Amino acid sequence: MTDIVIAGIGQTPVGEHWDISLRELALSAIEAAIEDAGGLKPQALYVGNMLAPHLSHQAHVATLIADFAGLVGIEAATIEAAGASGGAAIRAGYLAVASGQIDVALVVGVEKFTDQIGSSVDAALSTASDGDYEAVHGLTPVAQAALLMRRYMHEFDVPHAAFAGFPLTAHANGACNPNAMFQKTITPEAYQKAGVVSDPLGMFDVAPYADGAAAVVLTRPELMPPAFPHPLVRISGSSVTTDTLALHDRPDMLVFDAARLSVERVCQRARITPVQVDLFELYDAYSIFAAMSLEAAGFAERGQGWRLAQDGQIGLQGSMPISTLGGLKARGNPGGATGVYQAVEAVLQLRGKAGGSQVPGARRAMIQCFGGPASTVATHVLEVKRES
Amino acid sequence: MTDIVIAGIGQTPVGEHWDISLRELALSAIEAAIEDAGGLKPQALYVGNMLAPHLSHQAHVATLIADFAGLVGIEAATIEAAGASGGAAIRAGYLAVASGQIDVALVVGVEKFTDQIGSSVDAALSTASDGDYEAVHGLTPVAQAALLMRRYMHEFDVPHAAFAGFPLTAHANGACNPNAMFQKTITPEAYQKAGVVSDPLGMFDVAPYADGAAAVVLTRPELMPPAFPHPLVRISGSSVTTDTLALHDRPDMLVFDAARLSVERVCQRARITPVQVDLFELYDAYSIFAAMSLEAAGFAERGQGWRLAQDGQIGLQGSMPISTLGGLKARGNPGGATGVYQAVEAVLQLRGKAGGSQVPGARRAMIQCFGGPASTVATHVLEVKRES
Repeated sequence: MTDIVIAGIGQTPVGEHWDISLRELALSAIEAAIEDAGGLKPQALYVGNMLAPHLSHQAHVATLIADFAGLVGIEAATIEAAGASGGAAIRAGYLAVASGQIDVALVVGVEKFTDQIGSSVDAALSTASDGDYEAVHGLTPVAQAALLMRRYMHEFDVPHAAFAGFPLTAHANGACNPNAMFQKTITPEAYQKAGVVSDPLGMFDVAPYADGAAAVVLTRPELMPPAFPHPLVRISGSSVTTDTLALHDRPDMLVFDAARLSVERVCQRARITPVQVDLFELYDAYSIFAAMSLEAAGFAERGQGWRLAQDGQIGLQGSMPISTLGGLKARGNPGGATGVYQAVEAVLQLRGKAGGSQVPGARRAMIQCFGGPASTVATHVLEVKRES
Repeated sequence: MTDIVIAGIGQTPVGEHWDISLRELALSAIEAAIEDAGGLKPQALYVGNMLAPHLSHQAHVATLIADFAGLVGIEAATIEAAGASGGAAIRAGYLAVASGQIDVALVVGVEKFTDQIGSSVDAALSTASDGDYEAVHGLTPVAQAALLMRRYMHEFDVPHAAFAGFPLTAHANGACNPNAMFQKTITPEAYQKAGVVSDPLGMFDVAPYADGAAAVVLTRPELMPPAFPHPLVRISGSSVTTDTLALHDRPDMLVFDAARLSVERVCQRARITPVQVDLFELYDAYSIFAAMSLEAAGFAERGQGWRLAQDGQIGLQGSMPISTLGGLKARGNPGGATGVYQAVEAVLQLRGKAGGSQVPGARRAMIQCFGGPASTVATHVLEVKRES
C-alpha cells in the first residue's frame, strides 16, 4: 500500500460570512492549501458540502469551484454524507490517490449557512435524517440529540452538569485558535445558567452552525516538493462506515456502533490501538455526542464517557485531548466543511504549529465526523511520517 | 493496473413512479444487480443522485439506501455532479476498487422527479447551472440548450429538421427496450409538427425527466463467481473532466471541450481510438447535445455532427450506433441515475442481451454523461474482457 500524505492545508476563519460567497470561501482555502503544498497542481477536486443545493440554490458545486479556482479540466465531484461530507471527501481523495490514477487530489470542505436563516436552515439540516419517518414529524437534528441525551441521562443516572467539561474544554482550546468562531473561555456557572435550546440541551451543549471552508492537498510522498518545511503527515487509516439512518432502528441507541466499527477499521489499518493516538478530534456537535464518541472509540465503557470530562483527561495535557482547536463547539460547525477542518487542525498539531492549543509532542491524531447521529462516520488516523 | 469488471447489473423501468419511494426504487435496482453478480457482497455503496435534497427533502441518501437495503456497516457516500452524477458515482466505485481497499463496490444511480411537479422541478434542475449568474436570471437548463441550439443553427446554417435523426433513432431503439419510458417510434412529420418547448427546441428535441434507478456491481475479476454465465465486461477507461460551469465563460461555446478531453483520456487509458468503439451511449438530453457530443468525440468536425443523423450512421447497423436502448430521449432521463443506466445498457449490449436493440457483435462501448452543458463530463469505456 502506497503512503498517502497531506502535502498542504488551508482554512478560512469560521463564522458568519454573509458577505462572502460559497465559491469565494472555497477559493480562499484552496489557495492557502496549494501554496502550503509548494504549488502542487491537483488533478482532482473532491468537495465536501451538504447544504448548498438547499441554502445557496447551487448544486454542481465541485465543478463551480474548480471553475472559479482556475482549475478547469481537472476531475471534480461533490461528496455528500450529511455532517460527514468533509470526512467522506477526504476518503474520496485518499482512494483516488491510492488507486494510482490521481497523483494530487485537492479536498475542500465548504459550507454556507448564512445565505438563509431560521426555519430554512432547520429544514435543510433535517434532510440529513429520514425524510419519511423522522423529518416529516418535525424532528430536527437538535431535537433528536436532545432525546438521546435525555435517554442517556436517565439510563445512566447522569446529571446535566456532568457534561460541562466538554464545552469548557472546547472553549478553553478555541480561545487560542485564531480561526475559531468563539475565542473565549466559558465557566461552569455559565454552562449551568445557559438558556435551554431543546431540553435537556442547553446553549453550550450545541455547536453553532457557521460558514467556512477548509482544504487539504493529498499526494504520494515521492511527489512532495523537496524543500517542504514541515514534518510530513501521512494518512495511516481511513474509513467511512454506516449505521441505520434513524435512531429508532438500532438495537441499542445508546451505542454509536458505526463509530465503534470505524475506529476499529482505521486502527487495524494503521496497526495501532486507539490509546496510541495523541489527540482525538471527535464530532462534538452536541456534548452528548462527545461523551458517546469517547465510548465508541473505546476510551470509556458504555454510559461512562462523561467521566472523562470531569478531571482534565480530555484537556491538552490530559490522557486523551479532544477538540484541541475548539472542536465543533468553539471553532464552529460548518457542516460539510467540518471534517476537513478537523484534518487541517490535526496537521497543525502534528507539525507542532497549534500555538496555545498545542498538544505537547503530538505525533498521531484521530479525526472523526458524523452524518446524523453517527449514521455515517468518517474516521481517519494521521501521523507524522517517520523518516525513511 | 488491476482490471475492474462489472459483475452485475440491475435497473427499474424508467417512468413516472409516483407510487414508489426513492429508497424502494434504489432497492429494486440493487437487488437485481447483486443477484446478477451471483450474490457478491459489497463493501461500499456510491450513490449517484442530484435532486433528492430538493425534491424529496432527503439528503444523506447513500446511508439511507444502505440502511434500507440491509447493508448497514458498509461504506457509503452520495456523489453529485448534476446530470453526470451517475457517471461520477461509477468513477468513485472504480477508483475505490482500483485502490485495493474495496473488493466489491456497489454503484447506484437513483432519481425521483415525480415527488414534485412544475416549477419546483425547474428550480431544482437550475441548481446545476451557476446560481449567481445564470439561474438567478431564470435561465433553466432547457432554455440554455435552446440558446445553444439556435447559435449552432445560425453559425453552421443548419435547419431544425436536420436534427430529426437523433430522436427518430432514439425512439426506434427504445421501442425494443422494455425498461424505456417511451417504447414507440416517431416519424419525421411528428418531429416537425411537435410543439415548441423553448424555441428552437421542439418536444422531440428534449429528453423527458423521469424516475428510475440503475445499479452496477464492480469488482476485480479474480473475485467473480466461477459460474458467471455472461462474457465478463471490464472498465478499460474512466474519466471525469470539467469545463466552465457557464457557457458564457468558454472561448468557443460551440465546442464541448470537456467532452473532447474526457474521450481523449479514456481512449488513452483503454489504448484505443474512438472509432474502435462499437457503440456510443452519449448524453442526448437535447438533440443539439447529441450532435455536439459526436463532434467532441471526434466522429465529426465542429458544426458537422448533425450530418451523422442524416443517413443511418447512428443506427444499430451504422458506423457509430448511439442511444441504442433509447438514449435519454426514449429511455428517459432519470437525472443522477442516467449515467448508471448507460452502463447497464452497455453491458447488455456487450453480453449480447440487448434484444431487438442489439448492436451486432458489440465488443466495446463508450458511455458518457454530462452535468450542465458538458460542464462535467463522465466517460467510460467498457469492453468484453478477453479470456486470459
